[in-house]
Amino acid sequence: MRIIGLDPGTATTGYGIIDASPDELIPVTYGVITTSPKLDMPQRLQQIYQELTDLLDEYKPVSAGVEELFFGRNVTTAITVGQARGILLLALANAQIPIKEYAPNKIKDAVVGYGKANKAQVQLMVRNMLNLTETPRPDDAADGLAIAITHYHYQRFESLYD
Amino acid sequence: MRIIGLDPGTATTGYGIIDASPDELIPVTYGVITTSPKLDMPQRLQQIYQELTDLLDEYKPVSAGVEELFFGRNVTTAITVGQARGILLLALANAQIPIKEYAPNKIKDAVVGYGKANKAQVQLMVRNMLNLTETPRPDDAADGLAIAITHYHYQRFESLYD
Repeated sequence: MRIIGLDPGTATTGYGIIDASPDELIPVTYGVITTSPKLDMPQRLQQIYQELTDLLDEYKPVSAGVEELFFGRNVTTAITVGQARGILLLALANAQIPIKEYAPNKIKDAVVGYGKANKAQVQLMVRNMLNLTETPRPDDAADGLAIAITHYHYQRFESLYD
Repeated sequence: MRIIGLDPGTATTGYGIIDASPDELIPVTYGVITTSPKLDMPQRLQQIYQELTDLLDEYKPVSAGVEELFFGRNVTTAITVGQARGILLLALANAQIPIKEYAPNKIKDAVVGYGKANKAQVQLMVRNMLNLTETPRPDDAADGLAIAITHYHYQRFESLYD
């Protein structure tokens, strides 16, 4: 099954698309949607919506994982990232793609086997699991792939009990 | 000029549309977009997007005011409302309607003349300024109208210096 993983942000939204089967995980594409702080927020959100919709049209994932957001105390950041996240959920809903959300510690646990793994550990495991010759860059793209892998693992786990 | 004011929320988004001129402020319509907590978030966001887009199509406002969000310490609420807010900004941008954002104290100041006015004072002034025979209900709809009035006042003020 083709899965997209998304790490939302107004300035940078990371994405990773994989073809996942019990035998192997194949990276299809990954990267980031970036928007300029020089643009007004509505235009930035419009750009995120359009670029994600184009990606979904082109690669046609059938299922999506999105990172759940946690912020210590920064409410302003939470609102801004919440806005970008709302846009991702809308674009996925409009493309009729089912969505699951994963907290950061679930992603680390699924990829590294340890909920408090650091960024470098996650990136190394993503690289190994997808047989990539280089660590995916930038970080947000690697996170997108990690979320896609996480989503596949949880989907498999759930299907065992269907 | 026809103006829409919006008070964002996932469960309830308040809106108010007015025709504003230096001589008078005429209420066009007001109300709330509500979504059921039984629906998944992507479907709720889809519904908000669709209902707002329908309103914009029907009433064709040329300018929009949106309430800026402030939350004391509740980061989870900030993310959720941020998501709804992102959807409003996207729908307005797609309808090519320019947007200004107003902090709650600016809205109270513009409507009541006092940045710390309470909800009842704002509602009374909205009712008087728009010559309504009843206080607009629910509260979020009254807030939508208050934001529309605020937006008109700031637009006028700016135009004095053009």
